[in-house]
Amino acid sequence: MADIPARTELQVTTGPIRGSRKVHVGPLGVAMREIDLEPSSGEPPLRVYDCSGPYTDPEARIDIMAGLPELRRDWIRARGDVEEVLQREVRPEDNGRLGPDRSGGVQPFPNVRRKVLRARPGANVSQMHYARKGIVTPEMEYVAVRENLGRERRAAEARDGQDFGASIPDFVTPEFVRDEVARGRAIIPSNINHPESEPMAIGRNFLVKINANIGNSAVASDVAAEVDKMVWSIRWGADTVMDLSTGRNIHDTREWIIRNSPVPIGTVPIYQALEKVGGVAEDLTWEIYRDTLIEQAEQGVDYFTIHAGVRLPYIPMTAKRVTGIVSRGGSIMAKWCLAHHKESFLYTRFEEICEVMKAYDIAFSLGDGLRPGSIADANDEAQFAELATLGELTQLAWRHDVQVMIEGPGHVPMHKIKANMDKQLEACGEAPFYTLGPLTTDIAPGYDHITSAIGAAMIGWFGTAMLCYVTPKEHLGLPDRDDVKVGVVTYKLAAHAADLAKGHPAAKLRDDALSRARFEFRWRDQFHLSLDPDTAEQYHDQTLPAEGAKTAHFCSMCGPKFCSMKITQEVRDFAARQNATADTFLEAAHSSPAFAGEGDHAKHGGGAPSPEAEAEAGMAEMSEKFREKGGEIYLPAE
Amino acid sequence: MADIPARTELQVTTGPIRGSRKVHVGPLGVAMREIDLEPSSGEPPLRVYDCSGPYTDPEARIDIMAGLPELRRDWIRARGDVEEVLQREVRPEDNGRLGPDRSGGVQPFPNVRRKVLRARPGANVSQMHYARKGIVTPEMEYVAVRENLGRERRAAEARDGQDFGASIPDFVTPEFVRDEVARGRAIIPSNINHPESEPMAIGRNFLVKINANIGNSAVASDVAAEVDKMVWSIRWGADTVMDLSTGRNIHDTREWIIRNSPVPIGTVPIYQALEKVGGVAEDLTWEIYRDTLIEQAEQGVDYFTIHAGVRLPYIPMTAKRVTGIVSRGGSIMAKWCLAHHKESFLYTRFEEICEVMKAYDIAFSLGDGLRPGSIADANDEAQFAELATLGELTQLAWRHDVQVMIEGPGHVPMHKIKANMDKQLEACGEAPFYTLGPLTTDIAPGYDHITSAIGAAMIGWFGTAMLCYVTPKEHLGLPDRDDVKVGVVTYKLAAHAADLAKGHPAAKLRDDALSRARFEFRWRDQFHLSLDPDTAEQYHDQTLPAEGAKTAHFCSMCGPKFCSMKITQEVRDFAARQNATADTFLEAAHSSPAFAGEGDHAKHGGGAPSPEAEAEAGMAEMSEKFREKGGEIYLPAE
Repeated sequence: MADIPARTELQVTTGPIRGSRKVHVGPLGVAMREIDLEPSSGEPPLRVYDCSGPYTDPEARIDIMAGLPELRRDWIRARGDVEEVLQREVRPEDNGRLGPDRSGGVQPFPNVRRKVLRARPGANVSQMHYARKGIVTPEMEYVAVRENLGRERRAAEARDGQDFGASIPDFVTPEFVRDEVARGRAIIPSNINHPESEPMAIGRNFLVKINANIGNSAVASDVAAEVDKMVWSIRWGADTVMDLSTGRNIHDTREWIIRNSPVPIGTVPIYQALEKVGGVAEDLTWEIYRDTLIEQAEQGVDYFTIHAGVRLPYIPMTAKRVTGIVSRGGSIMAKWCLAHHKESFLYTRFEEICEVMKAYDIAFSLGDGLRPGSIADANDEAQFAELATLGELTQLAWRHDVQVMIEGPGHVPMHKIKANMDKQLEACGEAPFYTLGPLTTDIAPGYDHITSAIGAAMIGWFGTAMLCYVTPKEHLGLPDRDDVKVGVVTYKLAAHAADLAKGHPAAKLRDDALSRARFEFRWRDQFHLSLDPDTAEQYHDQTLPAEGAKTAHFCSMCGPKFCSMKITQEVRDFAARQNATADTFLEAAHSSPAFAGEGDHAKHGGGAPSPEAEAEAGMAEMSEKFREKGGEIYLPAE
Repeated sequence: MADIPARTELQVTTGPIRGSRKVHVGPLGVAMREIDLEPSSGEPPLRVYDCSGPYTDPEARIDIMAGLPELRRDWIRARGDVEEVLQREVRPEDNGRLGPDRSGGVQPFPNVRRKVLRARPGANVSQMHYARKGIVTPEMEYVAVRENLGRERRAAEARDGQDFGASIPDFVTPEFVRDEVARGRAIIPSNINHPESEPMAIGRNFLVKINANIGNSAVASDVAAEVDKMVWSIRWGADTVMDLSTGRNIHDTREWIIRNSPVPIGTVPIYQALEKVGGVAEDLTWEIYRDTLIEQAEQGVDYFTIHAGVRLPYIPMTAKRVTGIVSRGGSIMAKWCLAHHKESFLYTRFEEICEVMKAYDIAFSLGDGLRPGSIADANDEAQFAELATLGELTQLAWRHDVQVMIEGPGHVPMHKIKANMDKQLEACGEAPFYTLGPLTTDIAPGYDHITSAIGAAMIGWFGTAMLCYVTPKEHLGLPDRDDVKVGVVTYKLAAHAADLAKGHPAAKLRDDALSRARFEFRWRDQFHLSLDPDTAEQYHDQTLPAEGAKTAHFCSMCGPKFCSMKITQEVRDFAARQNATADTFLEAAHSSPAFAGEGDHAKHGGGAPSPEAEAEAGMAEMSEKFREKGGEIYLPAE
């Protein structure tokens, strides 16, 4: 069995996810996983969305020194609107400005490209631009296949959900994807310099996505581990990964990550720009910032968080807050604005930024620099002033056919979550919302993956397109490997709960398959169908380690002596053995006086049409049959 | 420091919760905790609700062989409506029927009482009965003090929340408690044979409570550990504990637990009754069941889960379910009903059960035996048919002045949660709702404390009075000590998120205190104010173990080089240094053309009244001041 993750020399986790089989669907070879169920189930394999890339494919040869295959290379070039240019030369300050690296950090990526792509002069290579011209790109086709999953199986079923005005289709066509991208309701982050990425969509009419943050730090962590954090994050379900590194080796680390990432990579370019000016916010300039955008654009970053909504007049609105400005990017820009007493260059130069974005197809992730950092500050004047500006900037970006999503809070008590979604939809014209949590209380540091999963599931249900994960270490320290996994799985379940509640046509298939497995004591199927098969099996084995317990028709909660699910099977068997369907059984039941149904307690036993004696006889007969045929549990099938 | 939990010989955890000080308030000595904050904060201690009992009081002498002091002994006797009777003799089958114990299990509780209390003939000793007679009992007074916390501090503030029709008072008076109990909107579970309990209320107009389940099992676990599970559960915040033991030594284990429990203890008597008939559901009789009720009533169980709503006609409604009947009690009764083809004796004998309940003041927890065990089965016909019956039975219990709460699901996708609450309120006349989760998806075994915390927080917000915890081992195995803690803390945060969203007047005090501590880098205060100070500190120390890091004005997320919170302090300092309040700063800001506020992007820089030159000069001056005075972070206070 190759289902136990191995680590290569460079500490990248490979091997199939336990119980899953990688499949590639259709002419584009869209990557998915299938979970085979025990033959006794009589069920077909369950197809699940998969963002783990080639790392979980036993057929793939993983060589992180070379990077992943360039899936989109030909698609990008075939459009005839790009040109090759020499990559901007890497400067010492790109990797931390104070001279050569003394941290013993990463080597440069060995397979680095000398030439990179850029739109031909005057061209716009964004997926939104193509979409608006009516072009269905291979990226859109890929997304359509990827999003459908087992949707056709449920086509006949009535939609069960509350979607708050979303327009989730019964079946996703490439044309639907194109239309969503054209409207700005979805984005496909896909820098032309990141051809390794497997196209994915972020939008409220698609599956809710999740993002995992990775990054080194000036205080702790090391860069080599960060690369595996990306691989590890996507293994458990991160749809995109943000590299939030702030210390040394930023450029080289990012190169390693992007070349090996099958998911879109996001960054906050102001972090690197700040490094280049020695951490002194006042010394930031538009020129340094723009140069950083180009640097990262050429590497292949797929979306940039840009806090262009932190405007000078909004800053004083934060002075009375309990926790002021908690966004790093927001506070950097606030400091710059105050020091110069000028409007933010991110705002004044926004259209120049758009020019960069469309030359590479980088999506905006308009940052909420004034998001609340505590329950006390939720939904305040500063937050909503910024949101209105983000709406304004969305329109501006759309005029340039640049893809946009909008970042959202933060810390918000449950009763204020819906207002965030509603205001965002209104202010930003349904541009995808991308929220951090929100955390629904401040009092549980160490458990903020949970305080925030509550808010994330809710806002995902209301319409948020992507949820930024929170790990148990939030507010306290840097997440380790286990924390990252817990954060990702927690957010995956929150996103799935949101999909279910929205009535996503394919979401419930997995719940139902797992529940049937649970009910039928197919323990292995239950593990394999779960978001984290390793943990599920491990928890089971802690109580019942014996191999036989995995096929036992009981669980440790009740034990073999009595078990509610066993008894339910008897109920079913009983109904079946009457040579009657449940319906006729029910009918029979309703015709006897003891089955008075709802009503006053005092009434039961009276008022039914058939005489009591007849009913008593009927009951006695059924009772006799049950005892006679029922015997003990698990009669051989008749 | 005694802040690291010690364990007595009998493995009971004692010692203060880190950073908390036990206090006893008012003439009744209502137990609470206070968290002292660093002197630099200038803040008073924060008072928090505490259900950990004497175990966290360094002054208390803990001797679990003797049991806890009988706080309510005199209150109960002073009412003059009880009599002492000889306790029903313990029979072998009370501890598992097949002869003497061969499991090496527990010894009998050494300090067992020979005589127990019972209502005098014709008397009703329920808190509801007193409440309806207009009597304010000491139990109600205790609850009033306990629930207020720091509520008076916030009396002047506007209520911030959405309470969906709850009636949460600005201040809780004993009379308010009495009225809530009289209406049936709240219960105070308080068996007269459990005088050790510290009174607490369960009702939608009080703080949302949580329950932890403990219990041995025929397969694994041992009884001695179960006693400490109770102590461990309440340490982290369990407001009540249910003993769900099903194997051997049930009677003796329960005695140990009750004699040492400061919180109400609940049970599901049908589990023990089933043991008495060798696990054969068909052999259950009303007589055996009633005898079990008496046995447990005399021991002091405070509430009984009774699945009296599992009526014969509803059973066939479950045959087509994905997961049938998953409630153990429900399935036992379903089997009994089918075997005999008779209406459940719990339903037909309900008024006789009421007679038992009111003789000891045991509250009903009307069990939802037909709750959904999967997303597929949520809100179905069987579930709501049973709920209607539970409503009918509530009215019947209230006719006897017996306290009632109603158990709820289960597995419910988010969009179907509100309907559960609304139907429960309507069907059951606002009797407190007590829900298990609900789990919002089935696909995350190993993480079901989280899938369910999402549902629990939401339904708590909508009006559920008590949330039954779920541990990470749900569906997989038996929870260990760590699982119990994780389950309790997870549910505590969900309950608190619900209180916040309802606009509970005292809830936000703790969030705000913690957020201020976070903002001011008072790390120790941040740990102490959290629900789990040990884990918070441990997580912090994993990244920054040095003692100095606990007073450092930065965190490991950003490091010392730049930190958003540090920058915000500069924003504040800047505003303060202008010899101006934030308001005047804001005013000044708005008068300059760069502060155009919201509006079209193209417009900024124009249209303001003051001439550009004047503004430029003003900005330059302010900028100069900032650079001159701002220098580096943390200037000495001026």
